[in-house]
Amino acid sequence: MSETMTLVGRNLSPYARRVAIWCALQGRELERLDVAATDPSQADIMKSYHPGIRVPVLVLADGTRLIESMPICDWLDDSMPDMRLVPATGLARRDCLQRIALAHSTVEKVVSLVYEKNRRPEEFHWKDWQTRVIGQIEGGLAALEEITPEAGFFGGDKPDGSDVAAVCTYQQAEVTNPFLVEGRYPKLTALAARAMKLPAFADTYPG
Amino acid sequence: MSETMTLVGRNLSPYARRVAIWCALQGRELERLDVAATDPSQADIMKSYHPGIRVPVLVLADGTRLIESMPICDWLDDSMPDMRLVPATGLARRDCLQRIALAHSTVEKVVSLVYEKNRRPEEFHWKDWQTRVIGQIEGGLAALEEITPEAGFFGGDKPDGSDVAAVCTYQQAEVTNPFLVEGRYPKLTALAARAMKLPAFADTYPG
Repeated sequence: MSETMTLVGRNLSPYARRVAIWCALQGRELERLDVAATDPSQADIMKSYHPGIRVPVLVLADGTRLIESMPICDWLDDSMPDMRLVPATGLARRDCLQRIALAHSTVEKVVSLVYEKNRRPEEFHWKDWQTRVIGQIEGGLAALEEITPEAGFFGGDKPDGSDVAAVCTYQQAEVTNPFLVEGRYPKLTALAARAMKLPAFADTYPG
Repeated sequence: MSETMTLVGRNLSPYARRVAIWCALQGRELERLDVAATDPSQADIMKSYHPGIRVPVLVLADGTRLIESMPICDWLDDSMPDMRLVPATGLARRDCLQRIALAHSTVEKVVSLVYEKNRRPEEFHWKDWQTRVIGQIEGGLAALEEITPEAGFFGGDKPDGSDVAAVCTYQQAEVTNPFLVEGRYPKLTALAARAMKLPAFADTYPG
C-alpha cells in the first residue's frame, strides 16, 4: 500500500487548492488527480470518489476518502498535532476558524459567480442574482481586508490556516473575475504576494 | 450584559437550524432572530451581522458574532467539552465530521436547487444545471441512506452532530422539494421520525 495520499481536484477549485497548500505547509507528500467536478465527461470518475460529484476528495493511503475542505483540514491537523495550522482549542482556535469561515463564505460566492456569469448560457443569466452575489463578495472581501495584517501573516511569521483560506479566496476572485479585486484591497494583495514567495502557494496558483 | 446568545437565521436555513438544534441538545439558552438572508428588504439588517449577508450568525453574550455552521458548532463543542456532539479527536472525530460533511455537501445542493428551481424566474432556468444538481442530491442522499443506522442514532442512544446534520438535510429536501425524498430513503425517513420525538428537532421543523 502506498504511503502517499491523493488529492482529487484541481487548483482551480479553491477548496482543493486549500487542501493542497495545507498538506504542503505540513510537509506531507501528496499526489494529485486533476479532475474537474463540473466536467460532464468526468462525472463517472468523480462519482466514484464522491457520491455528490464534488471536489476536493482526499484519498488516504489506506483508501479512505475524505470530503469537504473544512473536515479534511480538521483531520490534517488532528493527525499531525505538531504541524497544526489551526490552534487546537480556545479563543485562538475560534478566531482562526472564524477568519477561515469569512474567507470560505466569500469564496463560495466567488464560485457562485463563476457558475452564474462565466458558465451559464447568457440567455439564462439573472442580473438581479449577479448583483446580489457581487455585493456579497465585496462585503466579504472588504471585511477580510479590514483584518488582514500589514506585514507577515495572520499566523505570525508563518501562514496559518486562515492565511491559506484568505489567499485562496483572493486569488480565486483574481483569476476568475479580476474586476472583483483589481486595484482594491491593498492589504490582501500584499498578503497574497508574500504568500506567493512560498512554494506551497506559488506551485498551486490557479491562473 | 445578557447571558443569552442570539441566533440570526430562520429554521428554513438548514445551516441555522443545525446551530439551533446543536444549542438545544447542549442545553444552551438561545434567542432567535428570524431574518431571511435572501430577503432584499432585510439586507441591511443582515449586513450588520455578516458582511457577506448570510445566515447563520451566532451572536454571543459579549457581542462577538460567529459565522458559518461548521466553525460555529466547533466552538459550541470546544467551549462546552462535556456536551460535545462531535468527539474531540481521533478516528471517532474524523468519522463523525465526515458524516456531517456528506450531509452538508448534500444540503448545499438542496439549497442550490431552491435558488435555481423555486426562486429564479422561470425564463432564466437552465435545465441542464437542474439535472446536474438533482443528480448530486440523489447521490448524496443515497450515500447517507447507506450508512444510516436501522435504530437509534449515529451517536448511539442520543443524537450526535451527524444526526443533526443528516436530519436537517433530509428534512430540508422534504420541505422544499418533496419529490427528492418521497417514498425513498426509508432509513433516513425513520431516523428523522425518531429525531422528531425530541423537542430540539420538533421545535425547529421548517415546514
